[in-house]
Amino acid sequence: MAKLIVVLIKHLKMTPIKQYIEENKQRFLDELFGLIRIPSISSIADHKPDMLKAAEYWKETILKAGADKAVVMPSDGNPVVYGEKIIDPALPTVLVYAHYDVMPVDPLDLWKSPPFEPEIRDGKIYARGADDDKGQGFMHAKAFETLVKTNSLSCNVKFMIEGEEEIGSPNLGKWCAEHKDMLKADIIIVSDTGILAPDIPAITTGLRGLAYWEVEVTGPNRDLHSGLFGGAVANPINTLAEMIASMLDENNHITIPGFYDDVLESSPEERELLNKAPLDIDEYKKAIDVAELRGEKGYTTIEHTGIRPTFDVCGIWGGYIGEGAKTVLPSKAQAKISCRLVPNQNHEKIAVMFKEHFEKIAPKSVKVNVKVLHGGQAYVCPIDLPAYKAAEKAYNDTYGKMPIPLRSGGSIPIISTFEDVLGLKSVLMGFGLESNAIHSPNENFPLDSYYRGIETIAAFYKHYAEL
Amino acid sequence: MAKLIVVLIKHLKMTPIKQYIEENKQRFLDELFGLIRIPSISSIADHKPDMLKAAEYWKETILKAGADKAVVMPSDGNPVVYGEKIIDPALPTVLVYAHYDVMPVDPLDLWKSPPFEPEIRDGKIYARGADDDKGQGFMHAKAFETLVKTNSLSCNVKFMIEGEEEIGSPNLGKWCAEHKDMLKADIIIVSDTGILAPDIPAITTGLRGLAYWEVEVTGPNRDLHSGLFGGAVANPINTLAEMIASMLDENNHITIPGFYDDVLESSPEERELLNKAPLDIDEYKKAIDVAELRGEKGYTTIEHTGIRPTFDVCGIWGGYIGEGAKTVLPSKAQAKISCRLVPNQNHEKIAVMFKEHFEKIAPKSVKVNVKVLHGGQAYVCPIDLPAYKAAEKAYNDTYGKMPIPLRSGGSIPIISTFEDVLGLKSVLMGFGLESNAIHSPNENFPLDSYYRGIETIAAFYKHYAEL
Repeated sequence: MAKLIVVLIKHLKMTPIKQYIEENKQRFLDELFGLIRIPSISSIADHKPDMLKAAEYWKETILKAGADKAVVMPSDGNPVVYGEKIIDPALPTVLVYAHYDVMPVDPLDLWKSPPFEPEIRDGKIYARGADDDKGQGFMHAKAFETLVKTNSLSCNVKFMIEGEEEIGSPNLGKWCAEHKDMLKADIIIVSDTGILAPDIPAITTGLRGLAYWEVEVTGPNRDLHSGLFGGAVANPINTLAEMIASMLDENNHITIPGFYDDVLESSPEERELLNKAPLDIDEYKKAIDVAELRGEKGYTTIEHTGIRPTFDVCGIWGGYIGEGAKTVLPSKAQAKISCRLVPNQNHEKIAVMFKEHFEKIAPKSVKVNVKVLHGGQAYVCPIDLPAYKAAEKAYNDTYGKMPIPLRSGGSIPIISTFEDVLGLKSVLMGFGLESNAIHSPNENFPLDSYYRGIETIAAFYKHYAEL
Repeated sequence: MAKLIVVLIKHLKMTPIKQYIEENKQRFLDELFGLIRIPSISSIADHKPDMLKAAEYWKETILKAGADKAVVMPSDGNPVVYGEKIIDPALPTVLVYAHYDVMPVDPLDLWKSPPFEPEIRDGKIYARGADDDKGQGFMHAKAFETLVKTNSLSCNVKFMIEGEEEIGSPNLGKWCAEHKDMLKADIIIVSDTGILAPDIPAITTGLRGLAYWEVEVTGPNRDLHSGLFGGAVANPINTLAEMIASMLDENNHITIPGFYDDVLESSPEERELLNKAPLDIDEYKKAIDVAELRGEKGYTTIEHTGIRPTFDVCGIWGGYIGEGAKTVLPSKAQAKISCRLVPNQNHEKIAVMFKEHFEKIAPKSVKVNVKVLHGGQAYVCPIDLPAYKAAEKAYNDTYGKMPIPLRSGGSIPIISTFEDVLGLKSVLMGFGLESNAIHSPNENFPLDSYYRGIETIAAFYKHYAEL
């Protein structure tokens, strides 16, 4: 009897939205797990059938949640899921963007549980995509369902769920251009970024751009005996190492001529504000177990990852990489190289600039091939946007404090494309934590983030309609 | 009838040795193929059972050829095959050294026929080990058989066939020390080197030494998102590339302090003689398809591969090396690195020197681990040695011209160990050609080299007994 009273009191204090979420907690989780179990890795061709499966799963989810319609539509790449519920053309329209594709899972041996079999440990969902972006994306479906089923929906809603974000959304720009009318809206909301800590909400107001290349350096036409030829013939690995090493000078400035020409330097005021975000350098170093950080001279760590471009080799391979020793002077060395870019740097211009520079610095003893894999522009969201204000209020409702606007080092290349093609700004209502290890082994998403995210998104709709 | 006369005349002109080889041609080839079909790759643990198979095959071969005894003997690594035929203790004793192990076969997709299924194309045997060292080693078994069966054997013969040459013979030195009495001989002969062209015989009088390491550079404790951390955290691939690049200066001199201290510089006279070996630089570049060579300033191509030490990365790997793009700031980068050394450089001293230098130049933002994989000393054979003179005459018999003494860039680390442990010089009676592509895909050995090698080795015994 006492127990029943406690439950009743709890329910009396709850809003209908909170109550609906509470009552459907387990099903909301089970349905997310169903999506996670589909290994929809967009960068690996073998997973093609999984892309369609994940798209179909999203379609069914949106339909069941109460959409007027939901369809899996073809694109030049993986299909795009589109859904909508138009309750009143006079009300504002929110376009939800998310992606159903995920990153590769290697190195697989570092995962504590299989990446596509979600497991709950210590109150967190462990799986590839648990955060990025199945967990975060699915919150929108569940927030939408909650609003529909509790008769609280205050805006028109459209969904656009793509399957190529992790490979740079190469086909979505064109697809958007072809469906511009269908996608008409007032704002785009996206949950694919993070907050500062479980109790420090934040909204990402800037994203870095990206340029990504694969380079191949060829020396001799076949692997040679390193004794018979070594010393006389250029080794393509040594050469690639030298070429990579030359890309950063002693101050960690990128040496590609013209690389910084279009960078809009932040004002001293902006930099001061930016550096107010809490960051404990010792904790930061401890978390990733490095004795020293390394960044561009003249900038802070927050600036290194927020407002400065980078040059990182994401992968390298060549020669004998098996067990033991093989004395070989290899024919080829290859690398995957990426630059994070900042607002006003054009990724297409940078892509060409790097290619030309890399080809130019190659010694005549090797042949060089540079392939541009993909890229995306940087993005900035003004903090006086009505939708940004609504998002601020929503976080305040659920976290009890106003979110901090922050510049993220990551890239969601499609966000700037939306602005170009659809003329729409995006508000990046992320709920991820650094410890969620996205793109890494043991990616995870706290259950609390999942449920609080659903509630926050639902609150956004309410505030947005009121503004 | 006319045909029969031609055959008879041919046989009449032949020595009994040449006739025996001619009559057993096909069987000599079939038996070699049997050995080649055993995939005895010493650097890959999975092939352990194949090592024993190859050793047993050699034992049977030596026994059938007419040895008094042949046994497969244990060592601290793969077994060693020992065999002997003592016809008269007063006669000179020749110790034959060869190895039954072979190099790995990757990249497998570049082979035109399976590496362990020998195929004859254009008069050449294509297979891993066809030359190095199954083809060249087996010639000794067949030369021995020929001498025994034609009652022409003029020396005592001992065989020592090991299974770890391609991983640097880590256990044979100790094995030799333990069996010093059994291995007593006057000279060692080895066929594991090459000649200059099918019609230009040569004897290798110098071999470079070798030091081989595996290095690991660790940045953060896990793969990081290159957007969220890139620019602030040292990338271990970038760092490894810089460290490798720093090992050679603009003149391609190795920058490890003290590296050249023990190098015995060749005299101007020696260098002049060395540079008389025929080498068409345009043909050399064309054969390996490079527009330009690259070697240490102040030395010629022949000197680069003959008398100068080298620094080559044999393999490199780290980060994402799968299909497509993954924006990762990896945790680790690794490389296999080797130096060819020249006479008087001590490989153990160099191994420590590199390790200390590499650890010293590592920035504090990464951790470095250097593992010494193996090494071997350089070797020089004096050209006034009786066995060298006998080898010269043998080549003159079968090639119609005297062989050129030459310094090879390759290493057979065990050769200098034989000198230290057994007090024996080795004569390197090689028959390989540059086009045989040893250690590479499509390794091959011309049938003519095989049969002419057998004949030359048989002639060596004759001349050696007469000296």
